[in-house]
Amino acid sequence: MVAETHTLAAAIVGGNRRALARAITLVENHTPEAGPLLAALYPHTGQAHLVGVTGAPGTGKSTLVNQIALHLRQRGKTVGVIAVDPTSPFSGGAILGDRIRMRDLAGDPGIFIRSMATRGSLGGLARAASDVVTVLDAAGFDVIIIETVGAGQSEVDVASLAHTVVVVEAPGLGDDVQAIKAGILEIADVLVVNKADDPRARDTVRALRAMLNLSNGSIGAARRLNIFTPLVKALPAPFPEEPVADGWKVPIEQTVALSGEGLPALIAQLDAHLDYLTTSGELERRRWARALAELDASLRDVLLADLLEHLMPDRLASLIDRIMAREIMPRQAASLLAEEAAGGRQASRSNA
Amino acid sequence: MVAETHTLAAAIVGGNRRALARAITLVENHTPEAGPLLAALYPHTGQAHLVGVTGAPGTGKSTLVNQIALHLRQRGKTVGVIAVDPTSPFSGGAILGDRIRMRDLAGDPGIFIRSMATRGSLGGLARAASDVVTVLDAAGFDVIIIETVGAGQSEVDVASLAHTVVVVEAPGLGDDVQAIKAGILEIADVLVVNKADDPRARDTVRALRAMLNLSNGSIGAARRLNIFTPLVKALPAPFPEEPVADGWKVPIEQTVALSGEGLPALIAQLDAHLDYLTTSGELERRRWARALAELDASLRDVLLADLLEHLMPDRLASLIDRIMAREIMPRQAASLLAEEAAGGRQASRSNA
Repeated sequence: MVAETHTLAAAIVGGNRRALARAITLVENHTPEAGPLLAALYPHTGQAHLVGVTGAPGTGKSTLVNQIALHLRQRGKTVGVIAVDPTSPFSGGAILGDRIRMRDLAGDPGIFIRSMATRGSLGGLARAASDVVTVLDAAGFDVIIIETVGAGQSEVDVASLAHTVVVVEAPGLGDDVQAIKAGILEIADVLVVNKADDPRARDTVRALRAMLNLSNGSIGAARRLNIFTPLVKALPAPFPEEPVADGWKVPIEQTVALSGEGLPALIAQLDAHLDYLTTSGELERRRWARALAELDASLRDVLLADLLEHLMPDRLASLIDRIMAREIMPRQAASLLAEEAAGGRQASRSNA
Repeated sequence: MVAETHTLAAAIVGGNRRALARAITLVENHTPEAGPLLAALYPHTGQAHLVGVTGAPGTGKSTLVNQIALHLRQRGKTVGVIAVDPTSPFSGGAILGDRIRMRDLAGDPGIFIRSMATRGSLGGLARAASDVVTVLDAAGFDVIIIETVGAGQSEVDVASLAHTVVVVEAPGLGDDVQAIKAGILEIADVLVVNKADDPRARDTVRALRAMLNLSNGSIGAARRLNIFTPLVKALPAPFPEEPVADGWKVPIEQTVALSGEGLPALIAQLDAHLDYLTTSGELERRRWARALAELDASLRDVLLADLLEHLMPDRLASLIDRIMAREIMPRQAASLLAEEAAGGRQASRSNA
């Protein structure tokens, strides 16, 4: 299996598209080969520009992603697209919709598109997307676009993968949708008002500009490293503060995705943001934050798997019975199990 | 602190509203008192009917929640409302909007309303909401409504807290929003078409009915226990399958939240669903699934905290450096740290 993994990894790095598709399937299905394969690919990653595109439903975000991909291709860049659909956690289904328009791009080996649905509710989405990003990055794509639907927590998680986060808005989506902007704006590096041929677009731009002015114009950059893992406190020194407090002014671009209007200016902003990230040191800071977040999630997985391996099934069942009887809370049961595991491990090794 | 915790817990169980508000603040802020307080309250929980209300932006869901609360009050029931706003993970802000209309209810001790924003991106939302549910449940509220905004993963997590999930739709929200229904429908026990005075409501009802027929009418019940935790495999026996495959037919109710039209029928469906849950054994199955999911999350927290307590800061820093240099993946670093922690714990105890 090891030799096979290295052959597959080498094929992916060498640009073999069939190997790439196979690898993504392995990774998405969490097969035993996935771990070694990702480890073999990891040293080949870190070259791609990771662009997150998010926004509320109805903003025309999928069409915009297609146009971004087309324009990047016209400029000679290779593009990977991951369309993450967090709305179907159980069926594994994915929204097709605009994806069909990507037929324009079918047959072009310089572009690769994958739709992903969530698996489970325990942070599975962000981790699976992260693995697919690793594969595409190792395969040498210049730009990887991570597109997310909706306006919930999952976008924030997925956005934390990206170097540059594009938040798409559209005119006239109603008050409730407007209210949602407040949260999603905070992760934006570039704002896009799509459907800019709608006469109400001017109002939307004005409202966004007012919000940006309130926040001093540097929302995404200022907020991104607010990561919430206990690992931060366990480090000997915190990562240095952002070099320039307002090094990046969040621009507002207007596009008409259906016609391609405004796309060259948007692409220029993506390039400008990557330049900013590289020259300011902010790219390193974001990579550091992502490394910490992924280490946090992996540690939780590994530690839980290790505990379960040594656990008596009856002990687990009896604790769940006590939770069901409301005698103890789940977190009290967790503390008990962790203490017993630490004691048990010691005992079994003393005996050996 | 122990005596104080028990005094506070007793006051909450006794119906003291000021104690309740104080407890929720303690719990939301993760103060040191929160753990013991929740543990003291836990044996007093399990009586409330937990109702989740979710749906896309623009459906009038907040107004509907207010009406449900008002109608339940008129029937003599006490009601707790938790409005979860996953759209503002960084600022801690919450959408007010319709919440202001709840002034109708201000001053009534039989109702308690709390808005919550997310803290961090590592599943913090669902856990914090779960803690607030515990406090409200112990305080004796008959019905606890958990309202969520948006259409992402966080709703699914929050919905898994609830016994009865109400999914709100509205006519004419556009194609993109329609597409989202596919995912959110799968968690529905009761469907509501709000704004039913809109002439397009008939089409929405027809479309929903067609989707329900496709899925055999029992979406929520069939899908809920698809929980994704490795704990399931570690148990000696799986929990019994759902007693009746189509024991609950998901109804479609039409409401006009602004006027209160259709509310009595909706309230009757909530009662009917609780009856179904209790008599079929499905309530116990859902509680079991929730116990497992919470035990999973708590174990991850406890195990990570334990590891970090014994970890050399320089060791952590050097592994993060190696991740940044792309020498190893975060999950390889996690395995190394877990192995070292197990070895180190053994060594330190052998020496003692």
